[in-house]
Amino acid sequence: MTSQRFSDLEIAGVYRAINERRDMRHFKPDPVPPELLQKLLNAAHRAPSVGLMQPWRFIRITKASIRRKIYDLVQLERLETSREIGLKDSSPRETEFMRLKVEGILECGELLIATLCDQREKYIFGRRTLPEMDLASVSCAIQNLWLASRAEGLGLGWVSLFDPLELSTLLKIPTDAKPVAILCLGYVEQFYKKPMLVEEGWAKEKSLSELVMENSWHAI
Amino acid sequence: MTSQRFSDLEIAGVYRAINERRDMRHFKPDPVPPELLQKLLNAAHRAPSVGLMQPWRFIRITKASIRRKIYDLVQLERLETSREIGLKDSSPRETEFMRLKVEGILECGELLIATLCDQREKYIFGRRTLPEMDLASVSCAIQNLWLASRAEGLGLGWVSLFDPLELSTLLKIPTDAKPVAILCLGYVEQFYKKPMLVEEGWAKEKSLSELVMENSWHAI
Repeated sequence: MTSQRFSDLEIAGVYRAINERRDMRHFKPDPVPPELLQKLLNAAHRAPSVGLMQPWRFIRITKASIRRKIYDLVQLERLETSREIGLKDSSPRETEFMRLKVEGILECGELLIATLCDQREKYIFGRRTLPEMDLASVSCAIQNLWLASRAEGLGLGWVSLFDPLELSTLLKIPTDAKPVAILCLGYVEQFYKKPMLVEEGWAKEKSLSELVMENSWHAI
Repeated sequence: MTSQRFSDLEIAGVYRAINERRDMRHFKPDPVPPELLQKLLNAAHRAPSVGLMQPWRFIRITKASIRRKIYDLVQLERLETSREIGLKDSSPRETEFMRLKVEGILECGELLIATLCDQREKYIFGRRTLPEMDLASVSCAIQNLWLASRAEGLGLGWVSLFDPLELSTLLKIPTDAKPVAILCLGYVEQFYKKPMLVEEGWAKEKSLSELVMENSWHAI
């Protein structure tokens, strides 16, 4: 039974990546070496996918002008989000939100857009009742990228503050595909010790014991 | 820059977990020790989440009668899926599908249901335009669980062949929550060398180079 278990140090590496991975918004501008980027994308590409559909696509943004336009789109959505938080919650919460750094698009070494692929309706296996499993697969790919990046000493931030239709227009993404993540990747001064939203007092973490139930749903 | 990088052996552990993780359908019945299960669930709980909403909930199935009912639900959906594959593709494809082993629900040591939590509409940060980011967070948690399990020598299978409404009724899951995964976890005889759907000839893997574009969408 133990033969399939990794060595203690390998196991420690896996848990360390899981525990020290952070959603990063602060970056150093140093570029990511191309061979390292390839290695990281390959880790993403090794993700599980529903019916092996591999629905992830990545668009590398290498033009500064496009990077700037993506930044502008996120700023617009940041304001819209702040407004909606103000409506639902209270005005101080809106101000708190606007104080948070929510992305590192202009500073990060490498900017990637992750999208769901086009022509997904032909994939039925595991998706007849749950078509959104394609997003689940792309998310697993991004989590692979995140963990491999952390192990290599790079930070990653997943930004979802954007209008997917606007971003699709900008990047000529077909109407049956869909961007789901702006990924800021790169070297960082330091990793946050805790999730940034906890450090900044925006949110508190729940304990695991609140989230595990037995045999049926019930409040714990 | 290198100080944030893990040791070579730790890094190797991370890539090994990523490369050797498989979506398992064959299990040995040995139980998963409770302290190991706790460690694995804790790895899941360390996942990133949109606005720190931590939308994952896990229901452990410990009653054999409920496990059996879940198995029955999956068998029903398997037939429905086969029928739809037959309609869209051709009859041999339908037969091929029915030959595949698609779950290990009755054999695996531990059965978990992962659900999206209830009352998600109050979370706006990162979800105003992309409410489905809650599923992305749950998927990252499951990927953490998958990789940590592989490192510990355990297999995991994500089964999405079920009607979420039927499963919700069975497990008393509230209407504003949603089950997204039946997770079969446990010891295995051996891990598939390649994804099982590749080994069985159901699907071919795409190469990474087909999936990476630059600055805008275009066929490669």
